[in-house]
Amino acid sequence: MKPPLKIAIAGLGTVGAGVLRLIAKNGALLAARSGRPIVVTAISARTRGRDRGVDLAPFRWFDDPVAMAAEAEAEIVVELIGGAEGPAKAVVETAIARRRHVVTANKALLAKHGTAIGRAAEAAGIALHYEAAVAGGIPIIKAMREGLAGNRIERLYGILNGTCNYILTTMRETGRSFDAVLADAQALGYAEADPSFDIDGIDTAHKLAILASVAFGGEIDFDGVYIEGIRHVTAEDIQFAAELGYRIKLLGSARLTDHGIEQRVHPCMVKLSSPIASVEGVYNAVFAEGDFVGTALFEGRGAGAGPTASAVVADIVDIARENRLPVFGLPAAALARRPRAPIERHRGAYYLRLMVKDEPGVFADIAAIFRDERVSMEAILQRQRDANEPVPVVITTHETEEAAMRRALSRIAALATIAEPPRMIRIEPLER
Amino acid sequence: MKPPLKIAIAGLGTVGAGVLRLIAKNGALLAARSGRPIVVTAISARTRGRDRGVDLAPFRWFDDPVAMAAEAEAEIVVELIGGAEGPAKAVVETAIARRRHVVTANKALLAKHGTAIGRAAEAAGIALHYEAAVAGGIPIIKAMREGLAGNRIERLYGILNGTCNYILTTMRETGRSFDAVLADAQALGYAEADPSFDIDGIDTAHKLAILASVAFGGEIDFDGVYIEGIRHVTAEDIQFAAELGYRIKLLGSARLTDHGIEQRVHPCMVKLSSPIASVEGVYNAVFAEGDFVGTALFEGRGAGAGPTASAVVADIVDIARENRLPVFGLPAAALARRPRAPIERHRGAYYLRLMVKDEPGVFADIAAIFRDERVSMEAILQRQRDANEPVPVVITTHETEEAAMRRALSRIAALATIAEPPRMIRIEPLER
Repeated sequence: MKPPLKIAIAGLGTVGAGVLRLIAKNGALLAARSGRPIVVTAISARTRGRDRGVDLAPFRWFDDPVAMAAEAEAEIVVELIGGAEGPAKAVVETAIARRRHVVTANKALLAKHGTAIGRAAEAAGIALHYEAAVAGGIPIIKAMREGLAGNRIERLYGILNGTCNYILTTMRETGRSFDAVLADAQALGYAEADPSFDIDGIDTAHKLAILASVAFGGEIDFDGVYIEGIRHVTAEDIQFAAELGYRIKLLGSARLTDHGIEQRVHPCMVKLSSPIASVEGVYNAVFAEGDFVGTALFEGRGAGAGPTASAVVADIVDIARENRLPVFGLPAAALARRPRAPIERHRGAYYLRLMVKDEPGVFADIAAIFRDERVSMEAILQRQRDANEPVPVVITTHETEEAAMRRALSRIAALATIAEPPRMIRIEPLER
Repeated sequence: MKPPLKIAIAGLGTVGAGVLRLIAKNGALLAARSGRPIVVTAISARTRGRDRGVDLAPFRWFDDPVAMAAEAEAEIVVELIGGAEGPAKAVVETAIARRRHVVTANKALLAKHGTAIGRAAEAAGIALHYEAAVAGGIPIIKAMREGLAGNRIERLYGILNGTCNYILTTMRETGRSFDAVLADAQALGYAEADPSFDIDGIDTAHKLAILASVAFGGEIDFDGVYIEGIRHVTAEDIQFAAELGYRIKLLGSARLTDHGIEQRVHPCMVKLSSPIASVEGVYNAVFAEGDFVGTALFEGRGAGAGPTASAVVADIVDIARENRLPVFGLPAAALARRPRAPIERHRGAYYLRLMVKDEPGVFADIAAIFRDERVSMEAILQRQRDANEPVPVVITTHETEEAAMRRALSRIAALATIAEPPRMIRIEPLER
């Protein structure tokens, strides 16, 4: 057996402690699979004393993770600090400068600086692995970079944020409001005290931008992702979706179009019968469509100490086995810089919920606007309620261009008979 | 860019022709991803003249695939002939002897001779890749050997044969008999003229034995797989399953138990709400449970030219990238030889269908037998039909040991009031 592979770990939160536990528990197995023992030599975290359920005595402690990345006796630096800037970025850059391999779970860092960091890693001749950055325990980066390497990937979409999926699942199961379910999720530790990264879709967009880069062989373009979160999804929308045979999911989707690359994160109505509709709670799932494989689906736990540690350690084993891969599936010089397909060019069906003051003529006004904008209605649902209050009217459309839909919406919003801003949710045809 | 990677392909059936088409269509992409052009130099098949939709002129033709494996100008020999013995085996052995890497889609060969072939490959220092042998386009071998390498895998199960899944799905959807649906499947090309490999569970068992080896780090033990096919599943059983909230699937499952390794292939009743219940038609799916990742699910097309070619080419790209892996996830010397957990020690719930001559006392007899064998009933369903014909009585049990169930069954079968051999289908608790 070869000499031990020494690693240094920066960041000992949930994931860092999970990695230490995994290596302690499965060390013999990892050595057999890797051909070398995997040994943690150095660690760094913000607070030293906190009980993490793991004995930290065997490891050299660094107060400064950047100093550790520079000085520790380690072939691999594992970055689990998080955040797009600051110490996480400095740790990764320092490790690369010192020609140490990097394993990171940091989606924000890669989404913002991934292409540059990938270039630097390639120039330094070191491995940069990031399986844990996307979809937790699901080995989706490996599937995209390697398992589906024979295919031209045409489209991918997925549920990439367990917090949002938990909230939407719970809203559907309980009929409760977004705010109430979010508060519960925060109390249970499923959502952060400041939940905006998750519920506003930023986290999903980080992951989508990384996945799209690997799938389509392009530079990471986080700024090109169209993003809507789930704050505006109401219990009423979820109820109407069910009546129409849909479930509401926050999806990240990316596609190569004639206008460039389309990257979108927003709530979607997906058919109840589609496989992604049944991915519930904290589970994540990614669907990829390739020109030879057809559709492949990968599902599992998207977060948590165990699944994320599983992904981090798979990366370490890869490096121990000396698997060397282009960082984003292609050498940095070969990564395309593609134009962005504007969301206005998106074509799809739409769900609209209008709150209508029940006056004669309102349907005629709406129908006239749709006629003018050439938007074709598929179905209208109207619920009778208290006659003194605005009533919800739900309209679904046939496939149309987003630009036309938006023009129609802004004209509808301006009607005197419309009591609240109209709500629009895109309908996604995701049959296998 | 490095010099071209030359490959020789033995076998030009559906899959072989698919591989040629993929390399022709996506050649530039493969070169960029691999860092070297991938070039087919030699081919061999039984008949030269047949139109395969690909121009064979650029390739050196060999009538004898074994001669090709020995003499072709190629770093990789791709074996797509099939069959556990004969030319396929000779091709692989010859390639290894000549220190050429091997990519194969041959599950029968690996199930029977995989451990020996893996040892030989390891001794020769060449790569042996076999992604296409299990679950078609789903990169499940890569997920097991690499993506989940941090985990001790505790259990896996899956739908591994598209023909059986298609037949069971169609029986459910149409209410037709096994024989009628099989005949249609044969006419459509979804089932072979001699379908026994598929419908008797052999093909599933081949794949399961390979998967279990990689997952649990043991020698392949195909002879240790308990196998039942789907011939005895009736439209009536499928109907009763639906009434009880189940769907019938042919599953391969493997588990580490206190008595050794349990490998089973047989029809199972799975809850309608479990994710595997909705894997329909020609789709395959594999679930793996690891100690850190939890449950991970992989789903996709299990057969066909495109998906299988996708898997074969992923293996070629792996070799081009110089990824070197222990053949079954561990070096051959480290593969465990585990005792077999006998099926009689299996514990689970059971579905029984008895055809009962409607005479007084029959329930008392059955209840007495269950009492004697300590089998606890969960539910009984009886359908009234023509009083002159035997009526079906369906019984589900609570968890019990298979040995007790079998004793009870053979005593029930001997009752004078039982008109046909009782049918038993195991119920699998597969919630996430």
